[in-house]
Amino acid sequence: MKKWLPILLCFFLFIAFGAAHAQFAKPELAIKYRQAVMFLMSQHVGRMAAMVKEKASFNEAVFMDNTMVVETLSRLPWQAFLVPGTDKGDTALKSAAFEQQAKFNELSQIFERRITDLVVKAKSGDFDAIKMQFGEVAKSCKACHSQFRSQ
Amino acid sequence: MKKWLPILLCFFLFIAFGAAHAQFAKPELAIKYRQAVMFLMSQHVGRMAAMVKEKASFNEAVFMDNTMVVETLSRLPWQAFLVPGTDKGDTALKSAAFEQQAKFNELSQIFERRITDLVVKAKSGDFDAIKMQFGEVAKSCKACHSQFRSQ
Repeated sequence: MKKWLPILLCFFLFIAFGAAHAQFAKPELAIKYRQAVMFLMSQHVGRMAAMVKEKASFNEAVFMDNTMVVETLSRLPWQAFLVPGTDKGDTALKSAAFEQQAKFNELSQIFERRITDLVVKAKSGDFDAIKMQFGEVAKSCKACHSQFRSQ
Repeated sequence: MKKWLPILLCFFLFIAFGAAHAQFAKPELAIKYRQAVMFLMSQHVGRMAAMVKEKASFNEAVFMDNTMVVETLSRLPWQAFLVPGTDKGDTALKSAAFEQQAKFNELSQIFERRITDLVVKAKSGDFDAIKMQFGEVAKSCKACHSQFRSQ
């Protein structure tokens, strides 16, 4: 049985990978999907940044709302990245993401975890803790963009 | 005191209205924001429709995930509609939405409530109940689109 495990694992990964990509009938739809998610995240992260940087007054409930929206969005775009053919056309995705998929996936997971941690901090209402964790989120955005997004 | 109540109410509504619109530096950003939300909703509602119409096999967990995403998204686009000037340009929004704001807001709230009810039905796992409530959601999409979206 044991010798079949790697083959079975590959099979299930293949199915899972295929299922995720099968969400999009055309590469253009995958690009449009991830760009929509990324744009919405940028809008909500921008509103949070204004509060964290004290350019807008800090409102705990509004900050929390934005964090929850970003948490939901943070889980979405990855299904639309690494779809074959989507490093061409109207996209800023570098082909390097396809060449370093493990790195790309690792960075996306770090981002998700940091957003989840930000939700915890936002619930605490501790502004300094929120500010620090927001900085960690911003770093994880940059870490991925600097490697895999055209400037 | 009582005679001031309507004035105070108007004042707070004005502030709330202004705050919502102030989220967007330019009308184009409001249009881009609501189009991004609507596109993502269409994608996730499409996946749910495939299951409800039995064109894809029904997976309770996957259906639930999609419903939760749509619930979060369903609360977002309204802040970006009825922003002055956004019935012009690259948009399908009819000017009628500005002329009948109460109707527009009522339809958006019905849609939100029906999505929340769909979450309840999705949690029950009762396929027939889910299918019926999904139909109610679809009707509320159409009710608004037929009045306020150019075809």
